[in-house]
Amino acid sequence: MKKFMNKAESMVAESLEGFVLANERLVMFGSDRKFVRRRHLVPGKVAIISGGGAGHEPLHVGFVGQGMLDAACTGHIFTSPTPDQIIAAIEETDTGAGCLLIVKNYDGDVMNFEMAAETLAGRHRIEIVIVSDDAAAYGAARSSGRRGVAGTLIVEKVLGAAAEAGVGLVDLKQLGERLGKQIRTIGVALGGVTVPDTARATFLLEPDEMEVGVGIHGEPGVSRQRLADADAIAAMLCDTILADQGMRNAGVPALLLVNGFGGTPTPELYLIYNVARRLIEARGIRIVRSLVGTYVTSLDMAGLSVTLSFLDDETLRLWDAPVLTAALR
Amino acid sequence: MKKFMNKAESMVAESLEGFVLANERLVMFGSDRKFVRRRHLVPGKVAIISGGGAGHEPLHVGFVGQGMLDAACTGHIFTSPTPDQIIAAIEETDTGAGCLLIVKNYDGDVMNFEMAAETLAGRHRIEIVIVSDDAAAYGAARSSGRRGVAGTLIVEKVLGAAAEAGVGLVDLKQLGERLGKQIRTIGVALGGVTVPDTARATFLLEPDEMEVGVGIHGEPGVSRQRLADADAIAAMLCDTILADQGMRNAGVPALLLVNGFGGTPTPELYLIYNVARRLIEARGIRIVRSLVGTYVTSLDMAGLSVTLSFLDDETLRLWDAPVLTAALR
Repeated sequence: MKKFMNKAESMVAESLEGFVLANERLVMFGSDRKFVRRRHLVPGKVAIISGGGAGHEPLHVGFVGQGMLDAACTGHIFTSPTPDQIIAAIEETDTGAGCLLIVKNYDGDVMNFEMAAETLAGRHRIEIVIVSDDAAAYGAARSSGRRGVAGTLIVEKVLGAAAEAGVGLVDLKQLGERLGKQIRTIGVALGGVTVPDTARATFLLEPDEMEVGVGIHGEPGVSRQRLADADAIAAMLCDTILADQGMRNAGVPALLLVNGFGGTPTPELYLIYNVARRLIEARGIRIVRSLVGTYVTSLDMAGLSVTLSFLDDETLRLWDAPVLTAALR
Repeated sequence: MKKFMNKAESMVAESLEGFVLANERLVMFGSDRKFVRRRHLVPGKVAIISGGGAGHEPLHVGFVGQGMLDAACTGHIFTSPTPDQIIAAIEETDTGAGCLLIVKNYDGDVMNFEMAAETLAGRHRIEIVIVSDDAAAYGAARSSGRRGVAGTLIVEKVLGAAAEAGVGLVDLKQLGERLGKQIRTIGVALGGVTVPDTARATFLLEPDEMEVGVGIHGEPGVSRQRLADADAIAAMLCDTILADQGMRNAGVPALLLVNGFGGTPTPELYLIYNVARRLIEARGIRIVRSLVGTYVTSLDMAGLSVTLSFLDDETLRLWDAPVLTAALR
C-alpha cells in the first residue's frame, strides 16, 4: 500500500485541514474542528447536515456550500462520525428554522445521527432523511435494508437547493423521502481497497474477476463474476437497476450518474455512461440530466457505480439550481 | 490490467462519445468527430484550440466551453492528434479573429500543431503558445526543453478568459508567453501505468520506491527515490519548484495547484496541499488561489504534481473570470 500520508491515524485530520485551507472562501472548520461548515450561514434557512466515515471524498465535505450542505461531519476512515460531532454541527448551524440530517443507511451512521437528534430533542427541531439507494442490497438478507451509496449526492443536491429556496423542515423531509424512492444505484469493483490503518486489502480478486454489488466501504458485493467487457458490464448494471421495484416508470425523465470509486479514470466512466445511456433510453426512459465523475468513493477502489434517478418538475428544477461547493458547482 | 473497456483500439472514441453525450449542453463533435468543440461559438472572438494524446482527461476536452477552449483535438492514448484533426478544428472554430493554439511541449504535439498552422497560413491568422512548465526536465539533457504538464490548465484558463473578454490574437500570444514563464510543476509517481494497447506497465517500482520528476505519459522521471512520508515528499517537490530559475519572486501572489495523475484519491492531494502551502508561504509567497483535484492525468497513475503559478493583477482577474466547462466551472 503506497499512499501520500504521514501517519494513518492523522491522515484524515491533515487532509481536512488542507481541504479547508484550499477552499477557505467557501468553508471553515466548526468548533474544535469537529465538522466542516459553510462559511456564510443563511439565517432562517433550514440547516442541511450530513456526514459519514472518511474515505468517500468528495462526499460529504466537498458538498458543503451554497445550495447544498451547511455542515459535514467526518469520522475516521470508513467509521461513523461521533454523536458529539453531529451535536456540535447542529448547534452551530441551526439558525432557527431547524435542521435536516441526511444519513446514508449504514448502522453506525444511522445510530450516531439518531443519538445526536435525540440528545437535542426539545432544543432543536430536527428531522432525518435516510438514503438507501443501493439496488444490490435489495432482497439480500440485510436486516437494515438497502445501503446508502452514490445516490446520496442527489439527495444532498436537491434538498440543499430546496432549503436554499426557503422550503421548511417538514416539507424537506417529505421531499427527501419521495425523492429517495426514485433513486437506485448499483456498483461494480475491479479490486478491493486497502485501508491505511490495517494495510490489508478488504478483498482480493483474480485478474479475470469482478465484484458486483459492492458498497463504498470496501466490503465484498453480492456476487463475484467473470470480468466482462464494458458493454456487458453496463448492460448487467442497467438491468439490475431497471428490474428493481419502483424503477419501471418508462417515459419519465431521469438523471443518469456514473460515479467512480476513486481509482477509475474518468474516460472509463464516460465509456460506461455511453453504453448505459443508450440501454436505458432504449427502455423508454428519457435521460435529461447527466453527471459523470468521481464523487462518492471508496478510497482508491477501482470500480464505479451507475445511478438512475427519476425527476419530476420540482426535483429537476432543484437539480438545476445554483450550487457553489468545492466538488459541485 | 483491468479496465472498463470493450476494445483498446476503440476506447478513446467510445469514451469521447459518452463525454459529448453527457455534456451535450456545452459541447458537440466537430466535423467527422475529429475534435470536440464548444457548442456555441462566439463570432469575432479569437478561437482557443488545444489538444494532445488521450489519457490526460479531463485535459483537454473537459476544458472546452465558455471562458476556456473552443476546441480540443484528442489523439489515441499518449499519441498526438494528427494535423488533419487540428486543421479541421481551426477551420470550423475560427470565426474571423484568428486562432490561438495551446500546445504542450512534446515533440509530436508541437510538430503536428505547427504542421497544421503552416498548412493554413495565409488563410487563417494563427499563433501558437507552447507550454513548458515542467521543473523536472530543466537542466536535463532534453533537447526539446521543459515538458508541458499540469500548468497547461492554467494557461488554458487564463488565455480562454482573455479571449472571451475580447483580447486580440497578438496580445493573447504575448500574455501566454509571459504567463508561461511564471508557472512551474513537478510530479511524483508511486507506480507506472499500463497502456491499454500494450497491456504492459511503463515502469515498475518496488514497494518502497517512488519516481520523481515524471511526466504525464507514463515515462520514467529524473530520479528514483526511497518512498518518504507526505511531509518529506511535499518539501522535496516545493524545493525543486522554488529552486527553479524565475521562481524566486517572494511576496508575489500565487496560485497553488495540486493535481492528481488519475489513481490518487483526492484526500491525499489535500494532505500534500496542506504541507505544500505552508512551506511555500514560509518562503514569503502568498497563496491567493488554490486548485486541488484530478485535472491532468496519466491514465490511472498513482501520483501527483504540484504547480506554482505567480499571478499579477491581470492574470488573477482572468483566473477568477467565469468558466463553464465539464471539468472546471
